[in-house]
Amino acid sequence: MVYLRPKKLDILGDKSALEVYLNRFTADQYGVKEGDLLDLYFVGHETGATALITDTIVDDGHIGIPAAIWNTYPVSELDRVAVELQGQAKSVASIRKKIKGEKLSYDEIREIMYDIAKRRLSPIEMTYFASTSYNPGFDDEEMYSLTKAMSDTGIILDFSSLGGFVVDKHSIGGLPSKGVTPVIVALMSKLGFIIPNTSTRGITSPAGTTDVLETLMPVSLSEADIKRVVAETRGCLAWGGGLELAPADDILIQIEKPLHIESYDKFVVSIIAKKIAAGCKYVLLDLPYGDTAKVSVADVAKVSKAFETLFAKFDIKVFVYKRQAKGPDGNGIGPILEARDLLWILERDKRRPIGMENLALDMAAQLIALTGKYNYQSAHEILRETLDSGEALRQFWKIGKSQGAKQIVKAEDLLPGHYTFEIKSTKAGLIKTYDNHIIVQITRALGAPYAKSAGIYLTRQVGDRINVGDVVATLYAEAQSRIDLAVKNLDGEQDGWILV
Amino acid sequence: MVYLRPKKLDILGDKSALEVYLNRFTADQYGVKEGDLLDLYFVGHETGATALITDTIVDDGHIGIPAAIWNTYPVSELDRVAVELQGQAKSVASIRKKIKGEKLSYDEIREIMYDIAKRRLSPIEMTYFASTSYNPGFDDEEMYSLTKAMSDTGIILDFSSLGGFVVDKHSIGGLPSKGVTPVIVALMSKLGFIIPNTSTRGITSPAGTTDVLETLMPVSLSEADIKRVVAETRGCLAWGGGLELAPADDILIQIEKPLHIESYDKFVVSIIAKKIAAGCKYVLLDLPYGDTAKVSVADVAKVSKAFETLFAKFDIKVFVYKRQAKGPDGNGIGPILEARDLLWILERDKRRPIGMENLALDMAAQLIALTGKYNYQSAHEILRETLDSGEALRQFWKIGKSQGAKQIVKAEDLLPGHYTFEIKSTKAGLIKTYDNHIIVQITRALGAPYAKSAGIYLTRQVGDRINVGDVVATLYAEAQSRIDLAVKNLDGEQDGWILV
Repeated sequence: MVYLRPKKLDILGDKSALEVYLNRFTADQYGVKEGDLLDLYFVGHETGATALITDTIVDDGHIGIPAAIWNTYPVSELDRVAVELQGQAKSVASIRKKIKGEKLSYDEIREIMYDIAKRRLSPIEMTYFASTSYNPGFDDEEMYSLTKAMSDTGIILDFSSLGGFVVDKHSIGGLPSKGVTPVIVALMSKLGFIIPNTSTRGITSPAGTTDVLETLMPVSLSEADIKRVVAETRGCLAWGGGLELAPADDILIQIEKPLHIESYDKFVVSIIAKKIAAGCKYVLLDLPYGDTAKVSVADVAKVSKAFETLFAKFDIKVFVYKRQAKGPDGNGIGPILEARDLLWILERDKRRPIGMENLALDMAAQLIALTGKYNYQSAHEILRETLDSGEALRQFWKIGKSQGAKQIVKAEDLLPGHYTFEIKSTKAGLIKTYDNHIIVQITRALGAPYAKSAGIYLTRQVGDRINVGDVVATLYAEAQSRIDLAVKNLDGEQDGWILV
Repeated sequence: MVYLRPKKLDILGDKSALEVYLNRFTADQYGVKEGDLLDLYFVGHETGATALITDTIVDDGHIGIPAAIWNTYPVSELDRVAVELQGQAKSVASIRKKIKGEKLSYDEIREIMYDIAKRRLSPIEMTYFASTSYNPGFDDEEMYSLTKAMSDTGIILDFSSLGGFVVDKHSIGGLPSKGVTPVIVALMSKLGFIIPNTSTRGITSPAGTTDVLETLMPVSLSEADIKRVVAETRGCLAWGGGLELAPADDILIQIEKPLHIESYDKFVVSIIAKKIAAGCKYVLLDLPYGDTAKVSVADVAKVSKAFETLFAKFDIKVFVYKRQAKGPDGNGIGPILEARDLLWILERDKRRPIGMENLALDMAAQLIALTGKYNYQSAHEILRETLDSGEALRQFWKIGKSQGAKQIVKAEDLLPGHYTFEIKSTKAGLIKTYDNHIIVQITRALGAPYAKSAGIYLTRQVGDRINVGDVVATLYAEAQSRIDLAVKNLDGEQDGWILV
């Protein structure tokens, strides 16, 4: 164990493998080579990191700490960091075993999850592990072990002292337009259910629920904040990425991003581990399927069954909400446009997306029926009343204020990007479906989710009749170059993503 | 395409994924985000690299180039580097396809190899590809495509204009002690065969042939150097790592290191691709097998067959030299100790390892018989004469001089580490075998291959009778702390690696 002076570097650093810089002289003195795994001890925290060697970036006796680390741990240039040279993480042997086709025990899987959570595995080592979820795959017992280990190696929230049913709604994702969850959280918490919702930023989608919500209120809450907000309001709308709920999952997601694929096994495990960590006992799982969704029609029964089996093993009641994905749930796609849609629903504005509103009410009613507090019919009536009376809107902003929102934002204050382009139909007929992949591609070309006001606004929905020349959608961006890029992406076929 | 001023950074950088630093302002201006893939164009060269964003390491308009790049490409701070933003490499779609269990065509595999060679794939993307060699694996046609694509995407040497048989000896590796190849190269080239040998540094072993040879002569040769040395001497003893022979293989090896495993499929492909690239037509493939070797007794027939089948498809004649691995071939393990062993053989010193000498003569005779120039018996006689007469020694140094050796080194000039420790036997009996894994572990603890004079010298060989208290081996190191570390690694059981 050696003690080095930390130097904060302005480099962000790798997000999946934390890296630190040592001066060559320091490294030689302690026998550290480029790429060696180190354990670092900050005040009350420890993490693994990979050693990089430099002659100039840090001086002898110092350790260079990129932002990915000092944003996460309490690094002070006044303290010393204790540094210990580690060999290769022991769990690498288990990864090797799995690659060779053997089964892993709970203890072996837990060690892998622990080492991932403690940043003791390199991206390459984690990728080998991630690859085994495709081939050779995991059996039921391993799936159970993975889920348990993934939640066990982080913090586990417990809201049982508050009384009442702890519920949540979660979507497997893959569809643009994210207003449903916030509406459900406002409704359910107003009706006395405890709903500690955590969401993510968009990885492959035009905007994650987190990207949408943060146009309205702070969402980056600590564990203590979440406990306080839920105690005050019975709900929360937090970003899950800053928390230590099933942390191995968040790290593994970085490894899945480059290929834009996630095995069914892996997302079943991820979602259930997060719900265990959040202390949920009743979950409505939104499972959209279809040609341009994450799950195909052929696989929906299998995936649904996998969720039901594994949730049951952890004593969590689940309602799997299977539905065919024909296009976005709302009209807006992109952070500001989606936030406007959801506020329009809560504000009872006539421009609100009715399809999305019905979906939110139906899902919430199913979730209530699952708890047994009311049957579906009664639940639906109560929910509609809560929405129509404006109580859901007040509840939404109660949560917002509790999370730190300075003021109530009105839908009319939310302005989409200044630069626009209208998509006109070249065909006539009934809109059967939208191609989600192309919607995602265009919206990202427009700059979402980084450019908050970029996105698409659909003026026609699935089921609407269109004629040649009708405006079907408007593109919004913060710069003309982004509009040009999106139009270039459409490649001359501007309405090829609308199937009539 | 933008033109930026290169700034050489003292950071080595990641070896498997080249990375460059852009100032945040420059990056924003050109729409480059952290982690984006860039194509870089230097004078006459191009490579892919990943973008990292910084506020201070480089100024606006500059591009920070780590040593891993400027050591490889002609980066001059007087020139500009042309930089182009790339999307994700197209071959990622093929990797995804393979993960999903589909077969890949030659064109798809070639694109993957090309993108790897051009540094267009990230370590994570490459790891997913590497994982498919275990599960689901490759069929015969894919194995052929992989081998062809791996050699096709680099330079291919051609020595046919020199006349004579182009031969080589190659070991699948995994055994400590590397003197056999240099002895064979000296013998074969002296007898008129063309033997353009390339070797590697030790990755998991105590010393690679390259580590041993560079204690005696320069081994880091360019393509032009190799052509000149082979024209002058008919042989060479070059380090393969600096060349563009099947470059995708060298990059993939970085991805295999962390797990210390390599699938059979993968090493068969690697070795054959390198031999095609080196222009070889006759190959002796050394295939040691056993409990502590790379290949187990159970698998030796399968692996041997895989080599024979695939070599035949490329019209290269192969002799697979199957042999049971009972311990190191020589007495010395570690760069200096192995170099001393091989010089003792060439110098006809009575302390030379006779087992290693016999192995070199037998392999060389088999290789000659494979070409049909002489039968095994005659070849063996000629080889022994060439060795006994000192002609092999003179030929070895002819190659050494041609590669740039300033002077002829004598075995007596090679001194092992000053700090020593004797391993005494605690048992009596006939030595049946040595555990290679433990030998590797001790030698690395002693500091090899970085500490050239560190290593183990075995005073007893497999087949020797020992008594309690006999000195079986001596450990050498450059510091007492390294001796202590090795002894600690032995964990009280100092001769547990010697099976009697």
